[in-house]
Amino acid sequence: MAPAATSESASEPTPLDRLDPLDLPEGHPFGPHNLPYGVFSLTEDGSGDGERSVGVRVGDHVLDAGAAAAALGSPYVSVLARPSLNSLLAAGRTTWSDVRRALTAWVTVPAHREVVRPFLHPLSSVTLHLPFEVADYVDFYASENHASNLGRLFRPDEEPLKPNWKHLPVGYHGRSGTVVVSGTDVVRPSGQRKAPADPAPVFGPSVRLDIETEVGYVVGVPSRQGTPVPLSSYRDHVFGLCLLNDWSARDIQNWETVPLGPHLGKSFATSISAWITPLDALEAARVGPPERSVPLLPYLDDSGPEAAADPAGYDLRITVTLNGQVISEPPFSGMYWTGAQMLAHMTVNGASLRTGDLYGSGTISGTEDNERGSLIEITWNGQQPLDLPDGKRGFLEDGDVVTLSAWAPGPDGARVHLGEVTGRIVPTT
Amino acid sequence: MAPAATSESASEPTPLDRLDPLDLPEGHPFGPHNLPYGVFSLTEDGSGDGERSVGVRVGDHVLDAGAAAAALGSPYVSVLARPSLNSLLAAGRTTWSDVRRALTAWVTVPAHREVVRPFLHPLSSVTLHLPFEVADYVDFYASENHASNLGRLFRPDEEPLKPNWKHLPVGYHGRSGTVVVSGTDVVRPSGQRKAPADPAPVFGPSVRLDIETEVGYVVGVPSRQGTPVPLSSYRDHVFGLCLLNDWSARDIQNWETVPLGPHLGKSFATSISAWITPLDALEAARVGPPERSVPLLPYLDDSGPEAAADPAGYDLRITVTLNGQVISEPPFSGMYWTGAQMLAHMTVNGASLRTGDLYGSGTISGTEDNERGSLIEITWNGQQPLDLPDGKRGFLEDGDVVTLSAWAPGPDGARVHLGEVTGRIVPTT
Repeated sequence: MAPAATSESASEPTPLDRLDPLDLPEGHPFGPHNLPYGVFSLTEDGSGDGERSVGVRVGDHVLDAGAAAAALGSPYVSVLARPSLNSLLAAGRTTWSDVRRALTAWVTVPAHREVVRPFLHPLSSVTLHLPFEVADYVDFYASENHASNLGRLFRPDEEPLKPNWKHLPVGYHGRSGTVVVSGTDVVRPSGQRKAPADPAPVFGPSVRLDIETEVGYVVGVPSRQGTPVPLSSYRDHVFGLCLLNDWSARDIQNWETVPLGPHLGKSFATSISAWITPLDALEAARVGPPERSVPLLPYLDDSGPEAAADPAGYDLRITVTLNGQVISEPPFSGMYWTGAQMLAHMTVNGASLRTGDLYGSGTISGTEDNERGSLIEITWNGQQPLDLPDGKRGFLEDGDVVTLSAWAPGPDGARVHLGEVTGRIVPTT
Repeated sequence: MAPAATSESASEPTPLDRLDPLDLPEGHPFGPHNLPYGVFSLTEDGSGDGERSVGVRVGDHVLDAGAAAAALGSPYVSVLARPSLNSLLAAGRTTWSDVRRALTAWVTVPAHREVVRPFLHPLSSVTLHLPFEVADYVDFYASENHASNLGRLFRPDEEPLKPNWKHLPVGYHGRSGTVVVSGTDVVRPSGQRKAPADPAPVFGPSVRLDIETEVGYVVGVPSRQGTPVPLSSYRDHVFGLCLLNDWSARDIQNWETVPLGPHLGKSFATSISAWITPLDALEAARVGPPERSVPLLPYLDDSGPEAAADPAGYDLRITVTLNGQVISEPPFSGMYWTGAQMLAHMTVNGASLRTGDLYGSGTISGTEDNERGSLIEITWNGQQPLDLPDGKRGFLEDGDVVTLSAWAPGPDGARVHLGEVTGRIVPTT
C-alpha cells in the first residue's frame, strides 16, 4: 500500500516500519523522475542546529544522500557527504548526470532500496537550510510583460520598454549575503522614501512592500575571468533551478534608484526554495522562447536550428498565494530571455562564474491580469487592491505569508514539482 | 646601517645576513606605525602556487605573521596562521588592536626581533594574493565633484545631481567574483554599445575603457539580518582600507544602464591593493567631512558633537599614474559621504554584513582639474585627451598600465603609505 502523500505539502510521516516511503503513487510530483537536492539537518531537539547533510527529496521524505552513498560504497560519497551542495555543483555535468542516475537506482531498484531505506527521514523531522553558499547574485528583468507593466506605471508618458530592452537581458547585481531559504521570516525593511509632494524624504518602515515571482538559476561550474561563456555552454555551467522571491520595497526603491539602480529596496532579503531541481529533471518541460521581434547580436542569437533543437526555455506553471489564497498564476514559458541568454550576456564581458552563483529571471508576468508576478502589477500600484478575507491589500502587511509554488510537465504525463518558496513578513525590529 | 629602501616600490632585497630589514629609516612609509596586512606565498619556483600565509608589510619585506606568532608562542597564531585574512577580519576590534600591538612589539622590541627575523621575506621573493575572500561588493558614489561632473557630461540639460544625492549615499552592488589583486592583468571587455546615431547596437571590445579611483572599505565583523548597524558602530565592523580601481567600460555602461544601473560595464574586473591598511594605522589621518548643505535623516546625521569628536573621513592623498606619468591627484578628504555613513545606509534596511564584505567610495574627484579620478572626467569624455609620450589618450589603450597610490599623515609627521593598486590592460581574448 502506498502512503497517502500526493500533494506537495508534507503529510503526517508514515512510520517506516509500517509503510514503505519509497512506494510512491504513480506520478507523484516528487517521485523518482524529480529528485531535487537540498541541505537538511535532523530537528530532534527542535533547534535545527544539527549536522547539515545533502538531502534528496523523495515523496514526503528526505534521503540522506551522503549516508546512503557511504552505505552503498558509492564513489559519489565525495560530493554527497557534505554540508552544502557546493561540491556537487562544482563537479560538472557528467557527474551531475551520473549521480542522478545512481540516485534513481537507489530509490527504485529493490536491492538498493533495502540499503537506503534507513536513511530516509520524514520531511516533518528535518530542518531545511540554504542549499548552497551563494557566490554572486544577479537579478534579471526578462519578462516583457513585467517590464512593460512597470514602464507604464512609472513612466506613463514614455514607451514602456527602454530602447535596450530587446537587445540585451537587462540585469543588475543583488546582495548574495541576504539570500535566505524558504521559510525564513522577512523583517519589514526601513528606509528613506519621498512622495513627489513631500518636501524632503521621510524615514520609516516600508509601506509598499512587494514580492517578485522569479525563477533562480544555480551555477555549478565556474569559468575563467576574461573568457565569455557562449549560449551553447549553458548546460555545462547551470546545475538547476529554484523558485525565488525577490522581496521589494517599492517606496525605498523608487527614491533611491536614480542613477545607479535598485539597492536598499531589494537588498534586505531574497528567498529561494530549499530544493534545487536539476535541469535533467526538466527535460520534458523545455520550450523555445517567444518570437524575437528585433534581430539579436550573435552572442545572444537563438534563432538558428541549433538553438531551436536545444531550447532553453521552461514550461513552468507558477502559483502565487497570499495567506493561502491564490493571487496569480504566472507562466514561465513566455519569458522573452532564456537562462542561456542571461548567462551568455552576464559573461560576455569576461566576467567569470563561480560555483554557487545565482541569477534570477526577474518578475514573471504573463499577458493576462491573473498572471502578474508582483503586487505592484496585480494591484496596479495599490490602486486596485486585492480583496482578502481579512481586508484589502495594495501591498504586504505584517503577518502576511507569500508562497510561490510551481510544476512542470514531466515524463509520461507526470508532473515535476519545484520546491515551494515561502516567507512571512514580520514587523521592523 | 639601514637599507636603502625609502620608497614604496620594492628595492633589491638586502641579504638578511648582511643588513637588518627591521632597521628602517626613521619615518619609513611602511614602518612600524603602518603594518598593513596581506596574503603572500613564496615564489621560489616562480609559479606563485606556494602555500598562502598572512603577511605583514615591514619596509620592503613581508613578515610571515603566522610563522612568527607560532615561534613566539603567541595566541594570535589562530588568526594569523591562515591562508586569508578572513579569520583576523572576523575576530573583531579588540583582537585587531591586540594583534597590532603584538606585531608592533615583534618588529621593534630587540628580543622579539631576533625571533621574527627569519620570517621576513623580501617583497621581491613573494607573490601577493587577494587578501580576503570578498563576500558582497557594493560601490558607492560619494564624491560630490565626481557625481556633478558625470551629471554634466551625461545630462547637460538637467541639474547635475539627482534629487536624492544629498539625502543618501547612492550605491549599487557590484560583482565580488571579479575582484582581483593589484598586478592582475585586466582583459579589455567586449560588449554592446550604441551611439545615438547608430540604428542598432554593435558588439565589440570596449572603446571607452576607463578607471575609477576609489578607496575600498573592508568589513570584518558580520551583523545580523534585520538589524541595522548605526553610524557609531562603524569601527566595530570595518577593519581597514584599501585602494580600489573600479575599471569601467563607459560605452557598455552607457547603453545598458537604464533602468537598473551598471552591470557589464563594471563587472569584468575590480582591482584592489594587496595590502589592507587597518583603521588603527590611520588615526592621525582622520578628518571631518565637508559641511552638509541639506539636513540629514537621523541615521546618517553626523553633525552633532559626538560625530564631530569621532570623525569618519580620512585625509588620503592619492596619485594616479598612467604608464608612469602622474595624471591626477585626487584628495580623499573632500568626500561628501563617509565610510560610516555608507555602512549605516547599506544596513539600515536590515541587510546583514558578512566578513569580507567590501564597499567602495566611488570615484574620488576633487574640485580642481588635476584632481579628477576617472578618465571620462579628466579628458571630458575624450574631448580633451591627455598628451602622453606615446600619443594622446581619451580612454585606455591595450598595454596601458594604471597605478593608484596614496599616503596619509601618520604619527609624528611620518607618512602612512597605502599599498598601491596597479593593472595593465591586455587585449580581448
